[in-house]
Amino acid sequence: MAKDTKNTKTPISELGEFGLIDHLTKEFRIARSSTVKAVGDDAAVLHPKQHQVITTDILIEGVHFDLAYTPLQHLGYKSVVVNLSDVHAMNAVAKQITVSIACSNRFTVEALEEIYKGIHKACKVYNVDLIGGDTTSSTRGLVISVTAIGESEEENITYRSGAEPNDLLVVSGDLGGAFLGLKVLERENEVFKVNPRSQPDLSEYTYLIERQLKPEARKDVQELLKKLEVLPKAMIDISDGLSSELMHLCKQSRVGANLFEEKLPLDPKVTSTCEEFELDSTTVVLNGGEDYELLFALDQKDYDKIKGNPHLTVIGHFTEANEGIHLITRANTKIPMKARGWQAMEEE
Amino acid sequence: MAKDTKNTKTPISELGEFGLIDHLTKEFRIARSSTVKAVGDDAAVLHPKQHQVITTDILIEGVHFDLAYTPLQHLGYKSVVVNLSDVHAMNAVAKQITVSIACSNRFTVEALEEIYKGIHKACKVYNVDLIGGDTTSSTRGLVISVTAIGESEEENITYRSGAEPNDLLVVSGDLGGAFLGLKVLERENEVFKVNPRSQPDLSEYTYLIERQLKPEARKDVQELLKKLEVLPKAMIDISDGLSSELMHLCKQSRVGANLFEEKLPLDPKVTSTCEEFELDSTTVVLNGGEDYELLFALDQKDYDKIKGNPHLTVIGHFTEANEGIHLITRANTKIPMKARGWQAMEEE
Repeated sequence: MAKDTKNTKTPISELGEFGLIDHLTKEFRIARSSTVKAVGDDAAVLHPKQHQVITTDILIEGVHFDLAYTPLQHLGYKSVVVNLSDVHAMNAVAKQITVSIACSNRFTVEALEEIYKGIHKACKVYNVDLIGGDTTSSTRGLVISVTAIGESEEENITYRSGAEPNDLLVVSGDLGGAFLGLKVLERENEVFKVNPRSQPDLSEYTYLIERQLKPEARKDVQELLKKLEVLPKAMIDISDGLSSELMHLCKQSRVGANLFEEKLPLDPKVTSTCEEFELDSTTVVLNGGEDYELLFALDQKDYDKIKGNPHLTVIGHFTEANEGIHLITRANTKIPMKARGWQAMEEE
Repeated sequence: MAKDTKNTKTPISELGEFGLIDHLTKEFRIARSSTVKAVGDDAAVLHPKQHQVITTDILIEGVHFDLAYTPLQHLGYKSVVVNLSDVHAMNAVAKQITVSIACSNRFTVEALEEIYKGIHKACKVYNVDLIGGDTTSSTRGLVISVTAIGESEEENITYRSGAEPNDLLVVSGDLGGAFLGLKVLERENEVFKVNPRSQPDLSEYTYLIERQLKPEARKDVQELLKKLEVLPKAMIDISDGLSSELMHLCKQSRVGANLFEEKLPLDPKVTSTCEEFELDSTTVVLNGGEDYELLFALDQKDYDKIKGNPHLTVIGHFTEANEGIHLITRANTKIPMKARGWQAMEEE
């Protein structure tokens, strides 16, 4: 477990379930007018003024995170952010979250406080209200389940299904960093196991590690698009890698796509770290995942509005469905794209 | 694991994550007009016409259920019902649910199908739409996280905080059955461990076992109250036992209460099984939990409307806060009530 919980150890049983919830949520304030009643009754009460979007994700220790190198505060922050990213991918404004946590007696009150500090920070940064949840014990490990709620005018909601042939394929930010951050953390963890006294200098990998441990949902991109008066025709967030997200857009919009390898936005640190790990950067971008950037279809007539914007890159275009989904390599070869499969189930 | 999954064993990896979700949810239909978009995008889209209530619960194998005696279909059903019960406790009509499941490779596609059969049944019985969720792997065991969404006119939402001195304390149905059902199942499971060829006849305990394995949320009671033109002033559902739920009502309404032991509604089977297990039925009712009945405060002027109704029992009344919360025994002794504490955390 992260070192910041080792100093004081208050067993959770000391507070009792309801005392614990009161204790962990006492710093949270309500910021959204659609929140009528938050934590403290059988259910929260909302009064949304527009259409509402709802999404949920569950994070399991040993599958989605490893506490050997994940600070609990960052874990709390990230568990909220990955859900807000889905709200943004619908072009909605995130308003509320619920958080349920199950943990074994290995976790102390101080450990939960760290997780809730991260959740609190995310609530402040993204201006969302914590409105409920559940805190319970588990037989082993930590489970975090978050539900996020957003609002949008009906006409601005962007589904995965609105892309048409000749639309531009646009992505925000740069790709591949989160996967490489994980690779760096895993490598250092192996070194640490062999030599616990090693003091690795990870400062040169700061960008990659932050992409992995403390990702941000692209609320700023959503706001940018609004300012540019651009409404995506279809949108998705990149949680599983560019390849499978593009396939979702194509499948649900019943279109094909051409993706240009030379257009993929790479941070210089991604390029150099791929070389260091002897990884192909295009493979990392296509299959890596956890970048939480926004991938969307844009009408060609809107091209001038986004041209040259440093936050947005046109990486391809949509085609008729029968043309399929292809990567056009730097050598101008056309390679059919495949999605990654279901991740191997853990052995029990 | 329950025997109904032993015949065919399809590994989950055969379908892939998205194939799995499609497969498990293909029988589900949308019934509610406020559901704009259900499963299949980054988030579900709703358009609630009234105030909305939201509640969430997480169920952990080995903590909240034991698959040695819990059929997977019943588990799926119950995981929905316990959340709907919270929606009803706000006096709202349940409309939508999300369901997230994490499981290890011990679980097959057929096992998940059984769980989803139960979820599907609950959706049909309670007329709610499955609008989203998450399916992922766990390192060990089964985790089910459900969020339920309901709607109500603002003026009909019943919080825990509306009870006043002299209000009647009313409960639906009868109490203690679910806890005794668990005791019967645990006893038979111990017998089975010693002699796996034993064929227990549990038919005489059917009522108790159903209360434990396949509880219902009291949608009918909510409808009954509406028909009787009775609006509870404060309400809560009984998930943790009468004692702690009454304390929540009193704490949040800033009142005291007197509860009359002789008024507690007991099924004859509860009484006889308490004798068999040498348990005090009042203790079982106060601390047993999982009855999912509704407990509410009613203005005295409404008494005539509910008098003699077989589904409703007046079990006490509220008092000024400084009078405290007491059980008045059959012997007319006044005993201060205590809530149960946080359940012992599991050893890891």
